[in-house]
Amino acid sequence: MTNTEQADTSGHSTKGSYVTSGEEFTRDTQYIETRITRDGADGFPVEAGRYRLIAARACPWANRSIIVRRLLGLEDAISLGTPGPTHDKRSWTFDLDPDGLDPVLGIARLQQAFFKRDPDYARGITVPAIVDTTTGAVVTNNFPQITLDFSSEWKEFHRDGAPELYPEHLREEIDTVNKRVFTEVNNGVYRCGFAGSQEAYDAAYDRLFTALDWLEERLTTQRFLVGETITEADVRLFTTLVRFDPVYHGHFKCNRNKLTEMPALWGYARDLFQTPGFGDTVDFEQIKQHYYIVHEDINPTGIVPKGPDLSGWTTAHGREALGGKPFGDGTPPAAL
Amino acid sequence: MTNTEQADTSGHSTKGSYVTSGEEFTRDTQYIETRITRDGADGFPVEAGRYRLIAARACPWANRSIIVRRLLGLEDAISLGTPGPTHDKRSWTFDLDPDGLDPVLGIARLQQAFFKRDPDYARGITVPAIVDTTTGAVVTNNFPQITLDFSSEWKEFHRDGAPELYPEHLREEIDTVNKRVFTEVNNGVYRCGFAGSQEAYDAAYDRLFTALDWLEERLTTQRFLVGETITEADVRLFTTLVRFDPVYHGHFKCNRNKLTEMPALWGYARDLFQTPGFGDTVDFEQIKQHYYIVHEDINPTGIVPKGPDLSGWTTAHGREALGGKPFGDGTPPAAL
Repeated sequence: MTNTEQADTSGHSTKGSYVTSGEEFTRDTQYIETRITRDGADGFPVEAGRYRLIAARACPWANRSIIVRRLLGLEDAISLGTPGPTHDKRSWTFDLDPDGLDPVLGIARLQQAFFKRDPDYARGITVPAIVDTTTGAVVTNNFPQITLDFSSEWKEFHRDGAPELYPEHLREEIDTVNKRVFTEVNNGVYRCGFAGSQEAYDAAYDRLFTALDWLEERLTTQRFLVGETITEADVRLFTTLVRFDPVYHGHFKCNRNKLTEMPALWGYARDLFQTPGFGDTVDFEQIKQHYYIVHEDINPTGIVPKGPDLSGWTTAHGREALGGKPFGDGTPPAAL
Repeated sequence: MTNTEQADTSGHSTKGSYVTSGEEFTRDTQYIETRITRDGADGFPVEAGRYRLIAARACPWANRSIIVRRLLGLEDAISLGTPGPTHDKRSWTFDLDPDGLDPVLGIARLQQAFFKRDPDYARGITVPAIVDTTTGAVVTNNFPQITLDFSSEWKEFHRDGAPELYPEHLREEIDTVNKRVFTEVNNGVYRCGFAGSQEAYDAAYDRLFTALDWLEERLTTQRFLVGETITEADVRLFTTLVRFDPVYHGHFKCNRNKLTEMPALWGYARDLFQTPGFGDTVDFEQIKQHYYIVHEDINPTGIVPKGPDLSGWTTAHGREALGGKPFGDGTPPAAL
């Protein structure tokens, strides 16, 4: 399976500082690439009830997996544990759960599941991660593969009416779009926010808005990124767009304009937000808390903005006029 | 003369830190209140060519004095020295001038003119300040009085067609509006940005937007804040509004919405911006550099955002439909 992001990506890691003075921001690139598959080639066959997805609602990379799990109706097959919005230098924590412990894994810190996999694990403790509940050890934290495998390897557990998020005949186009969206947008906002010099920031800002202008143009005449239905490509763009005005615009200085000032992108983002499986996975408070509290080196006061006004997200978007059917021949998941 | 701001204000001071943990932001309140008047009661009579206004373009409090000087045509009577956008802990500096020296005063640091006035001067080195060129000593840095005195005490030097910015019959209303605008808006944005606790910030944000909603409503049906022409009240509100999206929205977390999202305020701000004497005193680059570089405790990287897109400032505002004549029976200053 093509993994357009594998070469230079990471999930949402925990660390103490984000900006390196004088340097451009670069992501860590090493992951646990074990896969859960139908054939169990890596030793982990798909099996309902065995695996637990650990995904903080705050994190855009984790948010993808929560959306896809819900769109496909995998809730009964794969349980979900949700660390709180903030974390310390060492690990995401289960501070929102009773007694601060994940109710299934019984651990306080996600790090413990990484150490069960490798006692000397020295890389970032990232979400999303999938844990084997029979051992308590992380199977994978390779986030771009996780959602693709939900679509392809977990098919027998999909709900009736589940959409095809990564259909064979569109994979090449989806991969191409995903690659540009990842480097220029998903990661592009971080390149702005964690730039270690004015020059690095200026270049990052130009790259980001060049890509957003491309997307604005593309989405002016088509309802979804690829084809006539929602796909993996829409999931990946959505999780960045939904964080744009609350966080990236101010905190990461992605401030040529707000998302609300790009008509096609703003309509597109609202269309998805109002689609069951997208907006109902979004917790704006956790999102804001995460970024503004965790990144002490760019927001040392830790104060979380009260804005922006989010009431626009539920307003009419008019995108139906462009045609397309979000779920193709399928159906939306039941409303939460 | 009523001075509605004197009780708890300051000009734009230099200091090393702005946020006090756990505390609400409060302004210094002590000024050199000597006045330059027709009767010379304080020892400083109005006199063309004798005084030099020192006003950084970056600073909103100083920007007021530059606007009023230009609206009234006092350029020939009172010269202008402009410190650069950034300053160190001790003083504003003339780093934009040849050899880093103010060409009239021959000093590198504004602090030197304060020390000429008082060798033990221990309070903030603020702009705007007026310096007596015969001695090189600061006469006053009492910014709310400076602009009022430009209107009232310097009348004999006004240009033909100069507007009445502080007319007798409107003073009570202007003073009332100025008072609320000062405490809630001019200073309100700083109260958000320099809040030392989440609670202080949250309260400051609510106060600010309550006041902006009041102004939005007031300006929906009238073109200017008080009466049918521009007055001192408009000058004082304008210098905050013009900084709102470039600085206060992101840097100070005044982010319920952008100025561009409040139709009456945005139209009003553009109307003034396009009026000779207002927009032509504004240097957006200096404004952004000042805040983002000087406030190391809330922007430790010192990186200055490239945004926002400012092209909207010169677009049609349609405010003429509300009636009113910006200069009353007078005329605008010549375009720069």
